[in-house]
Amino acid sequence: MSAVPNAPAARRLTVWAPAGLGEVRPGDDLAALVGDLLDGEGLAEGDVVVVTSKVVSKAEGRVVMAVDREQAITDETVRVVATRRREGLAPLRIVENRLGLVMAAAGVDASNTPEGTVLLLPADPDASARALRDALRARFGIERLGVVVTDTAGRAWRDALVDVAVGAAGVAVVDDLRGGVDAHGRPLSVTVTAVVDEIASASELVRGKAAGRPVAVVRGVGRLVPAGWTPDDGGARLLVRPSADDLFREGSAEAYARGYDDAAAGRERKG
Amino acid sequence: MSAVPNAPAARRLTVWAPAGLGEVRPGDDLAALVGDLLDGEGLAEGDVVVVTSKVVSKAEGRVVMAVDREQAITDETVRVVATRRREGLAPLRIVENRLGLVMAAAGVDASNTPEGTVLLLPADPDASARALRDALRARFGIERLGVVVTDTAGRAWRDALVDVAVGAAGVAVVDDLRGGVDAHGRPLSVTVTAVVDEIASASELVRGKAAGRPVAVVRGVGRLVPAGWTPDDGGARLLVRPSADDLFREGSAEAYARGYDDAAAGRERKG
Repeated sequence: MSAVPNAPAARRLTVWAPAGLGEVRPGDDLAALVGDLLDGEGLAEGDVVVVTSKVVSKAEGRVVMAVDREQAITDETVRVVATRRREGLAPLRIVENRLGLVMAAAGVDASNTPEGTVLLLPADPDASARALRDALRARFGIERLGVVVTDTAGRAWRDALVDVAVGAAGVAVVDDLRGGVDAHGRPLSVTVTAVVDEIASASELVRGKAAGRPVAVVRGVGRLVPAGWTPDDGGARLLVRPSADDLFREGSAEAYARGYDDAAAGRERKG
Repeated sequence: MSAVPNAPAARRLTVWAPAGLGEVRPGDDLAALVGDLLDGEGLAEGDVVVVTSKVVSKAEGRVVMAVDREQAITDETVRVVATRRREGLAPLRIVENRLGLVMAAAGVDASNTPEGTVLLLPADPDASARALRDALRARFGIERLGVVVTDTAGRAWRDALVDVAVGAAGVAVVDDLRGGVDAHGRPLSVTVTAVVDEIASASELVRGKAAGRPVAVVRGVGRLVPAGWTPDDGGARLLVRPSADDLFREGSAEAYARGYDDAAAGRERKG
């Protein structure tokens, strides 16, 4: 991997986001809509097409009536990670959702959706990415194509949001340099880069949020788009850290309270 | 802001990372070295120059002998956030460092440094970015220039690492859309994007880790590079969430243990 950056493809990255996809509706053929949108500049071997989870969800009919948005969040929740009271609002809930993603409101989205509805994340964003990839490869007659499905997420420790990959196909999820060496010949022992998250973030800079540009093309990361990719190579789900391995699996206040209650009730201390 | 994505600059992003900076040594004039490196393609109004904290630290002489790397980490630590035992190694320490950044090993770096030394983060990465910006603006005769200083960081909940901004000057740290509306005219009430972190991540895709390419230029985000920027507009430090506001200010196991110990000792429950 240490030679990879010398590949021309690693030296220059271009991201563009064409306007004009228009409103996506349940049952729409998203691959056809995205293909039409990209016909102008076309696609090349090694490109990565980035699509927001929002339009994927709309095409897949993941819109639900929001008569009870809180119930929709509850239904998407596997595990409550942390909560915070909010003045005049339902408490903010940061939860692990069906996809293993830790997100505020379980990733249930009420912006850019018709009044009275909310949008759930795709049922299986990696599968959505694979289907979109298959259709676009066939349409544009290319073999090496990546597809990334993005969503916007908060982080611990840092304010504001960044886009991350919730689905991926045809592209390396991580750029694993653990086999590589640094300029001093010292092993790069712990550097595993979440390149699909970086691709998601790069595309957000061009797409914007209120832009009506939910689709972007990233050209110049062909080293991350292997020939002969198969679903066994894995998607964005690989980046989800199992909660058992996560030092931050539970909010600080929630963990403190659980410890306090265990001791107060005379229960034994948990690991 | 809702009109911003219609600006041509928001539509296409290009990132390149020239080779050839070479090894940076304490006392080197980093602005001169970076300027020489960029002379070929030059810089344009609205560009953002991205430099790794590693080369900034090297130029600023932040190299310390690593006879005791653990002591160097301790010296950089303001607050221990979480720890994890490791087989045959000193425990992994995730801490808040002098800069407010929550990072493994306090951001102390032992890769790409001469044997027997470690590299500390710059003393004030926002100030480093401002100094580099001033020098590059003068050299290339441009007014609107952003500079971002990056480091590689882990995240809660997601595996692998991404580059984030630890220093910034001349560029908007966040793209605040709270004043904007979505395609349905509904306020984009909570979308504050950490654009400098997304710029850092985008540049990492081109720079790579073992690349010998610690400098990148991002062109196409001119909407985020305002005329008349002043240091009062703030740097990357603005993205550091104060620990008091952070639902994940403490590792789950550490918080649980503190709660258990408080109750076991008959101390009253803390907020």
